[in-house]
Amino acid sequence: MKANLDCIPCFLNQSLEAARMATDDEELHERVMKEVMAHLQNVSFSRSPPEISMGVHDIIRKITGSDDPYRKVKDKSNEMAKKLYPGMKEMVRNAEEPLLMAIKLSIVGNVIDFGTANRFNVEEMIEKAAEKELGGEYEEFKNALATSKSILYIADNAGEVFFDKLLMEKLAEMGKEIIYAVRANPIINDATKKDAEFAGIDEFAKIIAGDEGQEKSSPGMLLLNASPDFMEYFENSDMVISKGQGNYESLSDVGRSIVFLLMVKCPLVAKDIGIEVGTPVLKVKK
Amino acid sequence: MKANLDCIPCFLNQSLEAARMATDDEELHERVMKEVMAHLQNVSFSRSPPEISMGVHDIIRKITGSDDPYRKVKDKSNEMAKKLYPGMKEMVRNAEEPLLMAIKLSIVGNVIDFGTANRFNVEEMIEKAAEKELGGEYEEFKNALATSKSILYIADNAGEVFFDKLLMEKLAEMGKEIIYAVRANPIINDATKKDAEFAGIDEFAKIIAGDEGQEKSSPGMLLLNASPDFMEYFENSDMVISKGQGNYESLSDVGRSIVFLLMVKCPLVAKDIGIEVGTPVLKVKK
Repeated sequence: MKANLDCIPCFLNQSLEAARMATDDEELHERVMKEVMAHLQNVSFSRSPPEISMGVHDIIRKITGSDDPYRKVKDKSNEMAKKLYPGMKEMVRNAEEPLLMAIKLSIVGNVIDFGTANRFNVEEMIEKAAEKELGGEYEEFKNALATSKSILYIADNAGEVFFDKLLMEKLAEMGKEIIYAVRANPIINDATKKDAEFAGIDEFAKIIAGDEGQEKSSPGMLLLNASPDFMEYFENSDMVISKGQGNYESLSDVGRSIVFLLMVKCPLVAKDIGIEVGTPVLKVKK
Repeated sequence: MKANLDCIPCFLNQSLEAARMATDDEELHERVMKEVMAHLQNVSFSRSPPEISMGVHDIIRKITGSDDPYRKVKDKSNEMAKKLYPGMKEMVRNAEEPLLMAIKLSIVGNVIDFGTANRFNVEEMIEKAAEKELGGEYEEFKNALATSKSILYIADNAGEVFFDKLLMEKLAEMGKEIIYAVRANPIINDATKKDAEFAGIDEFAKIIAGDEGQEKSSPGMLLLNASPDFMEYFENSDMVISKGQGNYESLSDVGRSIVFLLMVKCPLVAKDIGIEVGTPVLKVKK
């Protein structure tokens, strides 16, 4: 998905948020904003938002001297999700269709996202998850799953890793072999190996960094930054599951079938998918 | 009131909105965004938002070649407000305290503002206006009004002029002499003489442009751009009434008593006044 001029104010909101998380020094906040604006003047908006975002956050890290401004936020999200996990596991166990419930909850986990403007009340969302319809593509997903043995599951955010765990548990029970791909380096609140391990994902899946070897990560899995390892799984897995908006933005146009699970939080993504902001999405791309 | 780094994304949202109103040419939209970002890199944020906004909108006009991108929006606001006016006049007439109702409605008119991010449902707001409390400063306003003969009323937006008319009618009935100060030139959706005359304000007040003689207007009355005429009224009127956020931002720190009537739409203004976003405000500044 290509970026758009509407992304500019959003990048700048995010830059200010990140700069303030990294330091209390207001002069540095101002330098961040001015340098990000200088950078965005020379950016091509035919690139995807996660590609542009990578450069933006590099500026923030350099000016503030913080390698990981969202570390505290990520730890908090992980702790919150860890507490919610047992109750959600019960919900999956007691559901009429446990796989569907696990999918719904894994999508709900995508609301834990400090990189976009809107905030959702996670606990309320969990309660409502059971009632929400997912649209017609669940059957298509189930059919594809029936003939899939190997699954590449591309992670999105910290905290959300516990919601992914619910779905991976179900998939592992069904005998699937799962690769869970996180980011190699900190970028916004995206999950890294540390977050995946904190959630105990290694009990159900092999954890890899999709962009292993890169010095900077993007808040969406960019194939141009993918490790040879990732590319092999990406090309040869029977199914690819992609979580979140960032991964949707970077993978929506690539040439293989992908199951996208996300909450739509941005009007441009909403327009691209053809669905309203605030909607949980299971989209099977051919 | 000083601007803040949070104003940057807001200026850029506004720039894109204005550029799209002025032209369908996407290359011009991109040029606007990039030039506004270049401009904002060299701006001091110790200036007030309306001062900075003046430069931003100058860039938009120059690049798009449109002197008045919001003209259609202003005409639409005027037409809408004109239709609502008779019903509102009835509300004032039937109110227990007609002056209070006229004030409440004139504040509601301040929701007609395409220069800020939030939109409100005007008709719903009108219905609710009667019920809302205005806070403790109404009595203070009434006391000040009792000893005031001459009033300088600083206008804000097109459309809103009809809501101001309700209040000015009441003030005129009470024998007050009113000067209604609009902008000399188009800026966002701010009212100019054309809008004030369309609403028939001249029946109750003398209409002036507060920045008469300036080539560019600001979306807040800046004393540094004021005409000698305006300054005389500003210094010698018994009461100054200022409508809207823009005028609050440009006049909140000046050295005379001012009655501010506005809807709080921006978190920074909310913080400055010490009140929540979405709240109607009557504030008597000493």
